Amino acid sequence: MKAVCLLSGGLDSATCLARARQSGFECYALSFDYGQRHRVELDAARHVAVALGAVDHRVVRIDLRAFGHSALTDEIEVPKGRDEAAMGHGIPVTYVPARNTIFLSFALAWAEVLDANDIYIGVNALDYSGYPDCRPEFIHAFETMSNLATKAAVEGRTHIHIRAPLIEMTKAEIVCLALELGVPLHLTHSCYDPHANGRPCGACDSCLLRAKGFREAGVADPACV
Amino acid sequence: MKAVCLLSGGLDSATCLARARQSGFECYALSFDYGQRHRVELDAARHVAVALGAVDHRVVRIDLRAFGHSALTDEIEVPKGRDEAAMGHGIPVTYVPARNTIFLSFALAWAEVLDANDIYIGVNALDYSGYPDCRPEFIHAFETMSNLATKAAVEGRTHIHIRAPLIEMTKAEIVCLALELGVPLHLTHSCYDPHANGRPCGACDSCLLRAKGFREAGVADPACV
Repeated sequence: MKAVCLLSGGLDSATCLARARQSGFECYALSFDYGQRHRVELDAARHVAVALGAVDHRVVRIDLRAFGHSALTDEIEVPKGRDEAAMGHGIPVTYVPARNTIFLSFALAWAEVLDANDIYIGVNALDYSGYPDCRPEFIHAFETMSNLATKAAVEGRTHIHIRAPLIEMTKAEIVCLALELGVPLHLTHSCYDPHANGRPCGACDSCLLRAKGFREAGVADPACV
Repeated sequence: MKAVCLLSGGLDSATCLARARQSGFECYALSFDYGQRHRVELDAARHVAVALGAVDHRVVRIDLRAFGHSALTDEIEVPKGRDEAAMGHGIPVTYVPARNTIFLSFALAWAEVLDANDIYIGVNALDYSGYPDCRPEFIHAFETMSNLATKAAVEGRTHIHIRAPLIEMTKAEIVCLALELGVPLHLTHSCYDPHANGRPCGACDSCLLRAKGFREAGVADPACV
């Protein structure tokens, strides 16, 4: 059984890949060089894919900077030191327009070529940053669309499942699951700051959510040692 | 009112852009350099966008060759001389996995940045080549997903409509509409053959469907003169 697994190189997508492996899937990891300023995450993705035994890992280049409008792709400052109330209020400037829709569309293309029925994505609707394309209703709608979109689905060869095993979990629960599954957490990179040089800044939303998860799980983050 | 208009440079997408202009939209044309072997269509798209008064035209580079499996991107021979019975049977090798899903996803990202509610796509479910992502049920499912996917939609600033005005038309009806709307048909390029050097081969599915449309409309194709 083959699965395409979206892999950013962060805690969530690495844990998601490990979960797919545990479920018995032969995993085809997929990352994107989308003009993100924190490109160091692509190195993390490469190491994580190898460590978790993905049978293949592709990095597809797409130019999301063509449209702009995100602190992850443009010269907009990544917010630092926001508390939970601030994170819970509105959608932040790190939101990249339609990013998960685009990523899942490419995953769908690869799944069709591979005759795979399953696509894993490490989105999380609880301890997240308020991104609309991390919610269950979005995932379900994408799945419905997928099964009308491809030759493989229309010919009855595949039935696509978009699997988001972390979607209802807190960050602390994800940390515990990662430890249980043996995810090489020291290899993962979650920080959004392009100037952090491979070391987490400790202050962007992504670092703060990750730190909260480790704190609540009662373990030290090996990436911060 | 702004609309993002997918523009390949062929008869259908040019007519679709003209229809959007006629409906009063300020049009943002979007094309893809996706590794298609018939790259000459991108020149056609540039000329058509200018001729029809698009306010902007972007060509986004994406690498659909990363996954392969289509005669439009790989060294697979483009079928020639197929009759209507053959075209009506199954999905041909020119099908590119999840292509319209990927194209519409990028259009959705640009629409969000522009605060546009409307995305035009020139798909056609009657005289088409059997592609699953040209059918009304696919378009509807993509629209539903779109309105759950973006910050703009979730915050209530936009409501996305995927407009496919040609979807129920025959090729002959599209030719008549194109003439009525003043589409510069001599600038359009529909041929799939990468070796045709800007001249239509006259034998691939796309050329044959186009020729049938002009024949049934009772007019000469200015691109073939």
